[in-house]
Amino acid sequence: MKLNIALLAGDGIGPEVINQAVKVVNAVATKFNHEINWTSALTGACAIDDCGEPYPDSTHEVCMAADAVLFGAIGHPKYDNDPKATVRPEQGLLKMRQKLGLFANVRPTFTFPSLIDNSPLKRERIEGTDLIILRELTGGIYFGERGRKDNGNTAFDTCTYTRAEIQRLAKLGFEIAMTRSKKLCCVDKANVLESSRLWRETVQDMEKDYPEVTVSYEFVDAVAMRLVQWPNSYDVLITENLFGDILTDEASVISGSMGLMPSASKGLHTSLYEPIHGSYPQAAGKDIANPLATVLSAAMMFEDAFGLHAEAAAIRDVVNKSLAEGVVTEDLSGSNKAYKTSEVGDWLAKNV
Amino acid sequence: MKLNIALLAGDGIGPEVINQAVKVVNAVATKFNHEINWTSALTGACAIDDCGEPYPDSTHEVCMAADAVLFGAIGHPKYDNDPKATVRPEQGLLKMRQKLGLFANVRPTFTFPSLIDNSPLKRERIEGTDLIILRELTGGIYFGERGRKDNGNTAFDTCTYTRAEIQRLAKLGFEIAMTRSKKLCCVDKANVLESSRLWRETVQDMEKDYPEVTVSYEFVDAVAMRLVQWPNSYDVLITENLFGDILTDEASVISGSMGLMPSASKGLHTSLYEPIHGSYPQAAGKDIANPLATVLSAAMMFEDAFGLHAEAAAIRDVVNKSLAEGVVTEDLSGSNKAYKTSEVGDWLAKNV
Ligand SMILES: CC(C)[C@H](C(=O)O)[C@@H](O)C(=O)O
Ligand SMILES: CC(C)[C@H](C(=O)O)[C@@H](O)C(=O)O
Repeated sequence: MKLNIALLAGDGIGPEVINQAVKVVNAVATKFNHEINWTSALTGACAIDDCGEPYPDSTHEVCMAADAVLFGAIGHPKYDNDPKATVRPEQGLLKMRQKLGLFANVRPTFTFPSLIDNSPLKRERIEGTDLIILRELTGGIYFGERGRKDNGNTAFDTCTYTRAEIQRLAKLGFEIAMTRSKKLCCVDKANVLESSRLWRETVQDMEKDYPEVTVSYEFVDAVAMRLVQWPNSYDVLITENLFGDILTDEASVISGSMGLMPSASKGLHTSLYEPIHGSYPQAAGKDIANPLATVLSAAMMFEDAFGLHAEAAAIRDVVNKSLAEGVVTEDLSGSNKAYKTSEVGDWLAKNV
Repeated sequence: MKLNIALLAGDGIGPEVINQAVKVVNAVATKFNHEINWTSALTGACAIDDCGEPYPDSTHEVCMAADAVLFGAIGHPKYDNDPKATVRPEQGLLKMRQKLGLFANVRPTFTFPSLIDNSPLKRERIEGTDLIILRELTGGIYFGERGRKDNGNTAFDTCTYTRAEIQRLAKLGFEIAMTRSKKLCCVDKANVLESSRLWRETVQDMEKDYPEVTVSYEFVDAVAMRLVQWPNSYDVLITENLFGDILTDEASVISGSMGLMPSASKGLHTSLYEPIHGSYPQAAGKDIANPLATVLSAAMMFEDAFGLHAEAAAIRDVVNKSLAEGVVTEDLSGSNKAYKTSEVGDWLAKNV
């Protein structure tokens, strides 16, 4: 197959981890006889430095023309803690989500047996955890009307959802649930919010189309508790944008495997694959960042964007092998030898 | 002193745990020579059953006339999972918060050494945890304009904050921080929300009035992570209503002492003290519920509403003694003898 992939390395450790994913994807392509056409483009702080825009039109065109987007991470300390800065890397992220129609962020949380002891939670609480949070990504309070009144002394934000937006996200949730244990949890705050009541109503209406799926409805505060108590009691969760922001981050720390977690954002025009970790500016340029989450995001891309399951499995297998043989960066090496980011990438590409 | 206390037992295990707190408060009053004037009133499902209203005017009058309110818990399964029910116990809660002006919910999370192994988190992660979350309780998206458009196919909720509402809450946060380690964390989503930017701006402006307090600003998603990773790295956190709802519940499970956690809601007219746990309808009437969170809420009331520190200390001491001597309900007794709710209350009252 001929695969057109847009490459958005971003800031901080982004370029370093993306480079390793490129090596691995190229190796897989050779092995399975695919032709990869990579197109790089700028986004984030590096794009602001370049042209004053965190998600320039030229980058958008590259993404629109691609079959899939592989993304590193964005963010730079010079923009942190300055909510009044007029241009910020995160704005690029929001603009990209909106313009590419990336309506569903798919965030798996699972455990790697060899990493389970890294978790802040006790082993017996997390063993077997394998859940997916589907976060709505282009609606809600992130994109509603906002502003000031009373000479700036009153501020407001609006959370708006349409039935169609909820259906689109929930449909994906039901479909994913059908491929797994057929359990779906709709997370809302329907005891307070009207938008949550529309979520619940809409999902309830859809239940009849998926008679095999058992749906539960839980309040976001209860889920924030149960995710820490019994994460392995969940399977597929669907939720709105802001709740998803909080819960996916909370879920990311429970498995002890945060540095390895991939994610996908499904779009109307194209889909995007990225590690869940940030741009860790402190580690940038040191060749020490763990590339595995990005490499596993590439596996998600093969499966999800191209329907190439054997290729995805080959990547996951070689990642498991690197973990088993200790070919890992310093965050995972413990008292053993730490490999460099680039060494891990080379090893994976060679052994895939 | 003459202390007028409104007693809102509520639903489920509410009456049982409240009864034990009454015994202990009466014993403390005898010991320290106070006269307690208790006035009971209905709220929650029991009030709906009685008069169709979860927070009747008569109950409001009782609360307004009191120096403090001691509250049990509300909620009944017959109202659960039915967001379209026109009258629900939670509405009583919201109405009560609004009418009493309960603008600040103060939620401590701390560990009891003897309970630390109940936590889903590893011991080394939680030892020394002693934090307070201050949740704004009468503003934000809970009380903003909401509704439907497009024949019910679009729903919206509005999050509104005024500078004055933020100042009122933040002032309390700074004051509490001054009595502790002088560290305050303002939790917001200022990279997205205008209301969060007003929070940050307002708190930043107040920093000069409390030069000894070190203030940090963190995004709610990052806090949801760090609360699980390093809860003992926090001291006092302030946040808006919805974020506080999620984070206080998340924090409640990390210490392993959830069944013991008290809370206070500071009001314009009076203040209210309640355990953080719910009405556990399954346990109602069985004399098995743990009364200690309610008893410790009474301790908070003595200190906070009446400025009676020795009385509060006496309650905390006898609670610690009951834990040390194993005079506890079945949730804490492990393989030892489990005491009944009423037996624990009697023992505490006798030994205070
Ligand atoms: C940077 C920020 C705007 C963003 C979000 O809130 O969506 C981030 O937290 C994320 O989850 O991708
Ligand atoms: C019952 C519900 C409305 C309430 C809230 O969200 O405030 C509860 O979760 C709480 O935290 O007291």
